[in-house]
Amino acid sequence: MKFSNRIMSMETSPVRKLIPYANGAKAKGKKVYHLNIGQPDIKTPELFFEAVKNFSGDILTYSPSNGIPELIDAMIQYYKNYDIDFSKDEVLIMNGGSEALLFTLMTLLDKGDEIVVPEPFYANYNSMFQVLEINVVPISTKIEDGFHLPSKAEIEKVITPKTKVLLISNPANPTGVTYTKEELDVLAAVAKEKDLFIISDEVYREFVYDGLEYESFASKAKADVKDRVIIIDSVSKRYSACGARIGAVLSKNKDFMAQLYKLCQARLSVPELEQIGSAALYKTPQSYLEEVNEEYKKRRDIVFDALNNMEGVVCRKPEGAFYYIVKLPVDNSEKFVIWLLEEFDIDGETLMMAPAEGFYATPGRGVNEVRIAYALKAEDLIKSMKILEEALKQYPGRVL
Amino acid sequence: MKFSNRIMSMETSPVRKLIPYANGAKAKGKKVYHLNIGQPDIKTPELFFEAVKNFSGDILTYSPSNGIPELIDAMIQYYKNYDIDFSKDEVLIMNGGSEALLFTLMTLLDKGDEIVVPEPFYANYNSMFQVLEINVVPISTKIEDGFHLPSKAEIEKVITPKTKVLLISNPANPTGVTYTKEELDVLAAVAKEKDLFIISDEVYREFVYDGLEYESFASKAKADVKDRVIIIDSVSKRYSACGARIGAVLSKNKDFMAQLYKLCQARLSVPELEQIGSAALYKTPQSYLEEVNEEYKKRRDIVFDALNNMEGVVCRKPEGAFYYIVKLPVDNSEKFVIWLLEEFDIDGETLMMAPAEGFYATPGRGVNEVRIAYALKAEDLIKSMKILEEALKQYPGRVL
Repeated sequence: MKFSNRIMSMETSPVRKLIPYANGAKAKGKKVYHLNIGQPDIKTPELFFEAVKNFSGDILTYSPSNGIPELIDAMIQYYKNYDIDFSKDEVLIMNGGSEALLFTLMTLLDKGDEIVVPEPFYANYNSMFQVLEINVVPISTKIEDGFHLPSKAEIEKVITPKTKVLLISNPANPTGVTYTKEELDVLAAVAKEKDLFIISDEVYREFVYDGLEYESFASKAKADVKDRVIIIDSVSKRYSACGARIGAVLSKNKDFMAQLYKLCQARLSVPELEQIGSAALYKTPQSYLEEVNEEYKKRRDIVFDALNNMEGVVCRKPEGAFYYIVKLPVDNSEKFVIWLLEEFDIDGETLMMAPAEGFYATPGRGVNEVRIAYALKAEDLIKSMKILEEALKQYPGRVL
Repeated sequence: MKFSNRIMSMETSPVRKLIPYANGAKAKGKKVYHLNIGQPDIKTPELFFEAVKNFSGDILTYSPSNGIPELIDAMIQYYKNYDIDFSKDEVLIMNGGSEALLFTLMTLLDKGDEIVVPEPFYANYNSMFQVLEINVVPISTKIEDGFHLPSKAEIEKVITPKTKVLLISNPANPTGVTYTKEELDVLAAVAKEKDLFIISDEVYREFVYDGLEYESFASKAKADVKDRVIIIDSVSKRYSACGARIGAVLSKNKDFMAQLYKLCQARLSVPELEQIGSAALYKTPQSYLEEVNEEYKKRRDIVFDALNNMEGVVCRKPEGAFYYIVKLPVDNSEKFVIWLLEEFDIDGETLMMAPAEGFYATPGRGVNEVRIAYALKAEDLIKSMKILEEALKQYPGRVL
């Protein structure tokens, strides 16, 4: 009785594998600030709960495998506000961005095929590559460049005949980089020249700061690659509705959508109530998104100012999403996080961060880096940064 | 830009591929009785909706990847009523029985591995085998035997060194067979001798008729294979809550559960509201299940009596679930169903059934069979059977 090779090659989520240490700290009465996960503390718009509570049906039936019409229409309208036109058959509703990505990868890549992704990248991407036995080939990016892309020539170097897909997260989890139009142009040119699909994970689309211009890969400016582009979307971050597990895949490549739809049929449907609630979310006034954006910008700046005052800490101010990748003056960031949970506290309080090694495909990279999510409210972030500053002074594995 | 071989090898669901014909019939003003899908018309217990409406949180957050404690506890208690003991770490909550099965298959089988399944079997199993590139090896069963299993020797014949799993649905979709303790003993013995896992899909557990004794593969009588057994469960049919998309995997093999849990982590979580509602469902009084069982028994008998009066129709009375596989005196059941939708009606009414070929792995089997779901109310079934009887007389491809 052996398990599959695919499952055995899958590593435990680096974000989640330290949870037992956090639970241990809590069992000892410590308060733990969770800077390790992107769970916003912003309220989900009431519209969701109202719509769910107003559901008047008396049977929870299977809904259409592609999603309920109200939600598909709401998403189409949302994209129209960005001057992007999608038709009904170019949208498939998914069980979260996670299923959206897993099914998209299954549709595009076989075992041994290569996917090119700027690293560091979202650790769950790796989990999916591993279980699907897809080989990930990283485009290396660095803190010092704010994680922006290298030149076209550098990107082309990693493309091989086995490469089938370019995958980006934009704005990016875990780096906060927001790609410029010019960077997207380079990726589009590479995709055309090398005949690749582009998966653009844009679940943080509204989280772009400082008036920076943001371009979706679905925008009209990228019309010449529209058949290559697959958008991953979700209500999770946009409306602080992670627990609804409602995502979507959008693409103008109808052959792709027809293939992907077979997987949607095999899993029958997505919960109807969550779809009804999510359709209502799209009626949230624009002011909500603006206020949330303002709040995150404030949080980002609190963390930035604090990190900049810590000796030996290296980071750049993120342009989007709500994460930092930060280089710390420590021997090993996983050991440091475990030490924070097991050995350290200030007045009974400590913090948890995600060791960054799990966000890299290249062995050895990220060993002294962490990902910090600034999804907690300002006062908690201020306390967390004080704890981090003091901890870095006391940590026995400090390296300066 | 090619799609993956795995997706290209996946056939469109035979149950769903005729939907355009049904839509065409409706567009022409026909009423279509849907005997093709197992969507019960029984009301979902109010407890679900009450629990969801009473949710007092204001943020929809990620919930634990293994499921919320209330639902896990509710399932454990439900199994205790069957004298089956599961502990908290032996239950993982899933996005429906579909995700439960997909993730279980990913955990156990690699490309090219073999899974042995009595045929005919649920068509979505085939979709999953195809996209995971698992080879299905059928154990042939026949209408005339009520789809009961052949001898141990016959079963052993199909086992090869590549066989890793035996999969059964019990009570079975699409045949309605409910395996005897002796049949389960045979499967258990084969699993032990050949070192196999057993996946037992028991989502129709409460749908067993005529006072027949039902044994779960998780029961104490099967303790000697408990480390091999993986139970697929769901609230969909039990509580007429297909749209909640809440399922579960239960197993006493903790190593298996640890591997499977990695996939749960990768997809983050299952919707919290649906879990809260489903936990409440388990407080439904036993009388609900008894009334539903009585109602289905009545429906089964209506269909049986009607089918038995039709010339050239072959079927056995199902012992469980709510499906019939029926042999019809037609040249090709898919052509017959399309003809029903396109060409036939009585007073503007017609019916849809699932051609059975898609439920078989052996080429050529099931060509003149259909699956009939008796999930509709008695009067609709009576009308449907009248339509079927008349249609069989008029169908140009009739074969007697």
